[in-house]
Amino acid sequence: MPLAPVLDRLDADLDKSLARLFDYVRIRSISTDPAYADDCRKAAEWLVADLKTIGFDASVRDTPGHPMVVAHHAGPAGAPHVLFYGHYDVQPVDPLELWTSDPFDPAVKELEPGRKVITGRGSSDDKGQLMLFVEACRAWKEIHGSLPCAITLLFEGEEESGSPSLKPFLEANAAELKADFAMVCDTGMWDQDTPAISIALRGLVGEEITVKAANRDLHSGEFGGAAANPIRILAKVLADIHDADGRVTIPGFYDGVEETPTQVLKSWESLGETAESFLGPIGLSIPSGEKGRSVLELVWARPTAEFNGISGGYTGKGFKTVIAAEASAKVSFRLVHKQDPAKIRAAFRAFVEARIPADCSVEFHPHGGSPAIQLSYDSPFLTKAKDALSDEWGKPAVMIAMGGSIPIVGDFQKYLGMESLMVGFGLSDDRIHSPNEKYDLKSFHKGQKSWARILDAVSRRA
Amino acid sequence: MPLAPVLDRLDADLDKSLARLFDYVRIRSISTDPAYADDCRKAAEWLVADLKTIGFDASVRDTPGHPMVVAHHAGPAGAPHVLFYGHYDVQPVDPLELWTSDPFDPAVKELEPGRKVITGRGSSDDKGQLMLFVEACRAWKEIHGSLPCAITLLFEGEEESGSPSLKPFLEANAAELKADFAMVCDTGMWDQDTPAISIALRGLVGEEITVKAANRDLHSGEFGGAAANPIRILAKVLADIHDADGRVTIPGFYDGVEETPTQVLKSWESLGETAESFLGPIGLSIPSGEKGRSVLELVWARPTAEFNGISGGYTGKGFKTVIAAEASAKVSFRLVHKQDPAKIRAAFRAFVEARIPADCSVEFHPHGGSPAIQLSYDSPFLTKAKDALSDEWGKPAVMIAMGGSIPIVGDFQKYLGMESLMVGFGLSDDRIHSPNEKYDLKSFHKGQKSWARILDAVSRRA
Repeated sequence: MPLAPVLDRLDADLDKSLARLFDYVRIRSISTDPAYADDCRKAAEWLVADLKTIGFDASVRDTPGHPMVVAHHAGPAGAPHVLFYGHYDVQPVDPLELWTSDPFDPAVKELEPGRKVITGRGSSDDKGQLMLFVEACRAWKEIHGSLPCAITLLFEGEEESGSPSLKPFLEANAAELKADFAMVCDTGMWDQDTPAISIALRGLVGEEITVKAANRDLHSGEFGGAAANPIRILAKVLADIHDADGRVTIPGFYDGVEETPTQVLKSWESLGETAESFLGPIGLSIPSGEKGRSVLELVWARPTAEFNGISGGYTGKGFKTVIAAEASAKVSFRLVHKQDPAKIRAAFRAFVEARIPADCSVEFHPHGGSPAIQLSYDSPFLTKAKDALSDEWGKPAVMIAMGGSIPIVGDFQKYLGMESLMVGFGLSDDRIHSPNEKYDLKSFHKGQKSWARILDAVSRRA
Repeated sequence: MPLAPVLDRLDADLDKSLARLFDYVRIRSISTDPAYADDCRKAAEWLVADLKTIGFDASVRDTPGHPMVVAHHAGPAGAPHVLFYGHYDVQPVDPLELWTSDPFDPAVKELEPGRKVITGRGSSDDKGQLMLFVEACRAWKEIHGSLPCAITLLFEGEEESGSPSLKPFLEANAAELKADFAMVCDTGMWDQDTPAISIALRGLVGEEITVKAANRDLHSGEFGGAAANPIRILAKVLADIHDADGRVTIPGFYDGVEETPTQVLKSWESLGETAESFLGPIGLSIPSGEKGRSVLELVWARPTAEFNGISGGYTGKGFKTVIAAEASAKVSFRLVHKQDPAKIRAAFRAFVEARIPADCSVEFHPHGGSPAIQLSYDSPFLTKAKDALSDEWGKPAVMIAMGGSIPIVGDFQKYLGMESLMVGFGLSDDRIHSPNEKYDLKSFHKGQKSWARILDAVSRRA
């Protein structure tokens, strides 16, 4: 089945696809606010109705929370079967007064000369991103009467409110949802002109530690110099976690950490990101992590120990000569590659305990733990998608990583035994979760064609 | 003039002196609460009236706040002139529901078999303590018609609310108030049976430091490993302040610190205080300061660096993967001997600045600074007072120090060029500033006689 007419159809029908997105953005599907529960269901039903027009076997599937949308379409014999994931719910819009136009009345505006954007809540995250794929399917179906591969769609309505129903749904419907691989669209481009595939997401281990010393707060005149000070103990523990080269000193911390292939590091170098360009906008200039590594390697491929909060003693205005009974810190570790969250947590606790004086104590409270996602740099699907993106954008697609996490990718691994291809067309200035969310019209147009090309590429035999 | 009949008179009139203290405690002279301003004046007037009956030239002296009481009485030619200081104001009484009887309705109760105490707000701090001296003067005057030395009394009404009027008053009235030495009664005994003279008070330097990194809070997934974390920088700064032996590492910190004379250390040893007895009640057991020194030396004669408060990042419930823009700590130093507060502050700031990365910054906010008070261990007045106390209590008086500070002693040095003799009969379980304040009846009785003996001793020629 030739690709060119599919791409032509997407060009010709851009305005129609834009009208559909506008209809969709107008539905106020704010999942975290119970007042919008009916709107969430309406957004699910809107999708089902639209998918049925394309020929999908689509249905609204109830959960204890907002419903899922599941849709199936068969493909040619021997073609792969892919699961595409997105979410139809959006973030709240407050503070409403900071929006320059109604968040639920989408429009096309000129952001700067030659750069048009679609405005509205969900225009990028995730209604815009997911409709790209739906439009690509529509064009394939209209031109060829069929799709190049078997496709299952899974659209969630609780992504912006913690996804409470997702894991039970994946478990209960694993047989129905399992495919050869997943496509996850909740990611971004490198920049306005450079498409990207995300191949790694860091994992996370969170721990709260509370160092306890005396059985009550003490007067520092009376006891200072004799009584243990928990802030001093805590500061020493935290200071010991990094060495002078920025490496984490916890024994076993780097177990499972791999060196990033030289060719990947080189491709990251070619992106031209420097310490100045990366840190300058936030008022900094010196990378604080392991010495001798680029900022992109530091945030994409190296593990960290971060201190996210600390408190103890008197923290109000003025001064109080108190020695506190306890002091606390919230510590988190970003994990990469094969680092084991449980082992990291245990090693950290042992590291802390070894530094607590015999007459003091420490309490630990876990705050989540998930391993890193590291996809193969050279899987066939990835290579095909990369070529398809490069063809559409006239520029080599880059393989990037993300310092944060996308839980669905881990869930697909865990519950469905399935790797994910992470491709999206968001930009860092889309202001998702903030007032004046937008999506570039170029992302909307070329993103549809990108998915049409990817579907074509992954469906061809090598 | 013989001492014995004076002591007999104090024995005989104990009940009368108790009735006077009760009258005085009933006056609600809470200085920090403007609602009690009239009561404060009433307490000043009560004192003046009582002192006039003894023959003092006493007057209420207005200040911008609560009034002072100043009283003079001449002594024999050639006898010394002493200034006795106390305060007539008291702490608030809340939480009132924790008192077992009305704080302003004093009574004598049996705390444990054979141990009677006077209950009520101010019974110890400072109405009880100051009335001891007044009663000693009264007995001297009644028996001999005169006092053994010239005496000036200074009673303040703002000690519990920061003494805002004290320094201006001392400056404005220096010629009138200057004496050979001062007697300050706001201190305690070593234990119920052992009288004590305080010969040292630690000084204090307070500093607040704020480490600033990025120009806004960051997401630790996006920037973790590349962006400076102010909590990490702060923890390192604080951890560097002490070495493994508990010594402070700030260059020049120990300038002016002297070793305590061996005989003084031995006398402290003889008090039998151990790490277990000192730290046990607060749930600790291991001295945290400089290794190889007793707990009493640590809190009485060694300087410290203490961390009184720390805050930064997310400190609420749960977890937030944030890298804070800034983090703060409140740091204080207890000073001894000749340590210079200004030099300590400057050395600390230089120490911190040397540890701040070039792309971050630090701000300092000073919170007070005062040098230590260190009196001579062998001045004639001190030796005489020590012998007088030992005679009254049948047990050698010990020379102790205080880990905290009594600002008036420094003010007398600064504004009146006068050393202080610090003698008091409070006990560590007096619950001053707390509900159910009390003063041991034994302190009240033998304290009066102690002052009568001290007045006698310091007035005799060597």
